Amino acid sequence: MDLVSISDIFRNREKYLEKEISVGGWVRSVRASKNFGFLVISDGTYFETLQIVYNDSMANFSEISKLNVSACVIVKGVLTATPQAKQPFEIQATDIVIEGESTSDYPLQKKRHTLEYLRTMTHLRPRTNTFQAVFRVRSIIAYAIHKFFQERDFVYVHTPIITSSDAEGAGEMFQVTTLDLENLPKDKDGKVDYSKDFFGKKTSLTVSGQLNVETYAMAFNNVYTFGPTFRAENSNTTRHAAEFWMVEPEVAFADLTDLMNLTESMLKYIINYVLENAPKEMEFFNQFIDKGLLERLKHVASSEFARVTYTEAVEELIKHNDKFDYKVSWGCDLQTEHERYLTEEIYKRPVFVTNYPKEIKAFYMKLNDDKKTVAAMDCLVPGIGEIVGGSQREDSYEILTNRMKELGLKAEDYEFYTDLRKYGTVTHSGYGLGFERCVMYLTGISNIRDVLPFPRTVKNCEL
Amino acid sequence: MDLVSISDIFRNREKYLEKEISVGGWVRSVRASKNFGFLVISDGTYFETLQIVYNDSMANFSEISKLNVSACVIVKGVLTATPQAKQPFEIQATDIVIEGESTSDYPLQKKRHTLEYLRTMTHLRPRTNTFQAVFRVRSIIAYAIHKFFQERDFVYVHTPIITSSDAEGAGEMFQVTTLDLENLPKDKDGKVDYSKDFFGKKTSLTVSGQLNVETYAMAFNNVYTFGPTFRAENSNTTRHAAEFWMVEPEVAFADLTDLMNLTESMLKYIINYVLENAPKEMEFFNQFIDKGLLERLKHVASSEFARVTYTEAVEELIKHNDKFDYKVSWGCDLQTEHERYLTEEIYKRPVFVTNYPKEIKAFYMKLNDDKKTVAAMDCLVPGIGEIVGGSQREDSYEILTNRMKELGLKAEDYEFYTDLRKYGTVTHSGYGLGFERCVMYLTGISNIRDVLPFPRTVKNCEL
Repeated sequence: MDLVSISDIFRNREKYLEKEISVGGWVRSVRASKNFGFLVISDGTYFETLQIVYNDSMANFSEISKLNVSACVIVKGVLTATPQAKQPFEIQATDIVIEGESTSDYPLQKKRHTLEYLRTMTHLRPRTNTFQAVFRVRSIIAYAIHKFFQERDFVYVHTPIITSSDAEGAGEMFQVTTLDLENLPKDKDGKVDYSKDFFGKKTSLTVSGQLNVETYAMAFNNVYTFGPTFRAENSNTTRHAAEFWMVEPEVAFADLTDLMNLTESMLKYIINYVLENAPKEMEFFNQFIDKGLLERLKHVASSEFARVTYTEAVEELIKHNDKFDYKVSWGCDLQTEHERYLTEEIYKRPVFVTNYPKEIKAFYMKLNDDKKTVAAMDCLVPGIGEIVGGSQREDSYEILTNRMKELGLKAEDYEFYTDLRKYGTVTHSGYGLGFERCVMYLTGISNIRDVLPFPRTVKNCEL
Repeated sequence: MDLVSISDIFRNREKYLEKEISVGGWVRSVRASKNFGFLVISDGTYFETLQIVYNDSMANFSEISKLNVSACVIVKGVLTATPQAKQPFEIQATDIVIEGESTSDYPLQKKRHTLEYLRTMTHLRPRTNTFQAVFRVRSIIAYAIHKFFQERDFVYVHTPIITSSDAEGAGEMFQVTTLDLENLPKDKDGKVDYSKDFFGKKTSLTVSGQLNVETYAMAFNNVYTFGPTFRAENSNTTRHAAEFWMVEPEVAFADLTDLMNLTESMLKYIINYVLENAPKEMEFFNQFIDKGLLERLKHVASSEFARVTYTEAVEELIKHNDKFDYKVSWGCDLQTEHERYLTEEIYKRPVFVTNYPKEIKAFYMKLNDDKKTVAAMDCLVPGIGEIVGGSQREDSYEILTNRMKELGLKAEDYEFYTDLRKYGTVTHSGYGLGFERCVMYLTGISNIRDVLPFPRTVKNCEL
């Protein structure tokens, strides 16, 4: 159809002013008088709406005046500047075709609804201002991430969703099967016979693509994954979802310092890209969702991130132990309250905390010379705490396999991974960015359910 | 680390010629004489390799000469033009650090291996020429798709992977569960008690994001999904995988003609983007994988696609029924042999076939005025047949719900979907592009297992 989008009208107004154009959209409000009326429509391409003036010269004047919120119309008319009004222009309609009415039971009226209420209608909430802003920004962030890595020659690798490795995160994984649960095949010991399952063995949904993508970093040097990840954690919080997206770059010939540099550039790139490409949406968040948002983000984009060791951070935190629910001592894992205190109160800017005790970090992280800490880093930002976690990887075959033995991991499950240390091993590092956490951070939205188009949480899987 | 990538050297050679630089990479071959030798290294950033000349002034000369394929080195030296040689330049090394040796059991030697053999080593095959080319092009195609849609203001929507709708593709879906299969909870009738499952009901892996993404098209106008999709089909062919990626745009205010225009622009955009951004890789495919590839792709990029109705196509095909295993008549579904005949022999360019009998298409496709056909379209391309399938969607509440009744679909399962026809319905259309099929098409690779980094097929789920 030959329609002009509202985003095009706002961005290229000179091209359309005083011209007759056609616009399609959904009604946000109707104000009708006896002989004329106003429709405000949104077409979903731009955060701002467009005002339509119509009058009783139209045969369907009274039908138009009776339209309900969310009815769909195609309007023909002249785009006219309105220097005296709040909006910059409006359309003086000559013709309005009602594409689809909206029945009177439409549940979202013009008034403001709570985010909780909107969560009960997954399929309609993207039609509201808040979710228009959230999901456009989500899309822009996703693209900014691809753009950042592709401009730097990173290869995008689709790591698998279904996996037969249940090593990491065992017990918190979703099982994937084609067996008939009402009629399970059993082996001679009475156990489920997985040789009859689709893949001939027990399979689950991935909890991370990292180990897989490392195999590609050893071939392409710079790689990243960006895909869905799953955690069957039985926790009903504002920050946990069972299905979420993760970004995991992995870089050969990169040590922990290189990795921090990459993280810092990426976060600044994303923030600048979103501020530039979604200014209206960001103003909206700043005004209605989180008052300090813009200031905070601009501060992060222009700060040099602090870099401290875990040991230094713990020394600082211990001085303020009276302020914490959970007291800090060397060896403990840092909680969100500590992370936020470090970045918000002590350093007043983003902070990388490095070299954590090996006991609280994963087996594949590079052991430091002190034999007590590993070359891990967490990036903490004001307002949220940890946003990125990563490490240099253990590149020594001997140290890695010894550590696996200590932890009781089965060598044969990781042969593909230890092979990488036999055939041309190299210093390499990578991190994970929880994509929803990043969207929450950039929008100020505080519940993960409100940044996921179709949230999956405990006992909740709608549509 | 302060290394120059091989892609940077090739692209900005003037900047580095006659300068001392450091390069890291993996050994592809070693030729050692008594006093000097040559290493050929790849660093994964570029399809071409780099030659290193070294000599016995180095303390580790003999260790270098004994390196095996895939050992990792960091080379310091001067980049020197070699106008007389095959390669444009080489590095005269002053220092070579062996980062990681490659043990003698490294399974990929310099000789050529079959793709079948390489499939047995998922974690090492990306180090070979063919897979370097395949997976870089895969990444470039993925980015081209995002770029195409984002430049046109489409909103990227992550449709859910875990779904409670088992309507489409029932029986071919993977079930997702956290129930303990060795000890299933049962309800009072002895059936599995799904109220105890993670989501409180039976859930599966998605077979398509289309119905979900339509809810977003009604809010944002132009949207697309790009994510993994699953089919538990028990078919062991070169074209089926259990896990694959799909691209599904959905556009409001768009009819079937608009949809064909979008498809045609997207396919041409992807082809041109790849030809421009991966010229070496595409030459490699053309030379070693599929001789006619470049000619075919350039032809597609410059052709105006043909557009015929199913009825016209069937009339043409019937004339050639002697050539087909499966004879054509009106009402039958077109097989790959028919699709290829249409595009390769009859029209000699890509073809859209439109308006299929409603019986062979999905319930949500728009019924045409003839009441016999639906506004569907398949896009057929030479060498492969169908690459894109889509339709205008049924936007009438009445016709849609009647069709659902005819087919025995439960109204309550689709309430979110039929709601879209109650609240501001509009002409809208969308299609699906199987991403792996697209990668196969652009690379000439004929087995889907060779374009998936970690293929999942019947009885096969490695890593």
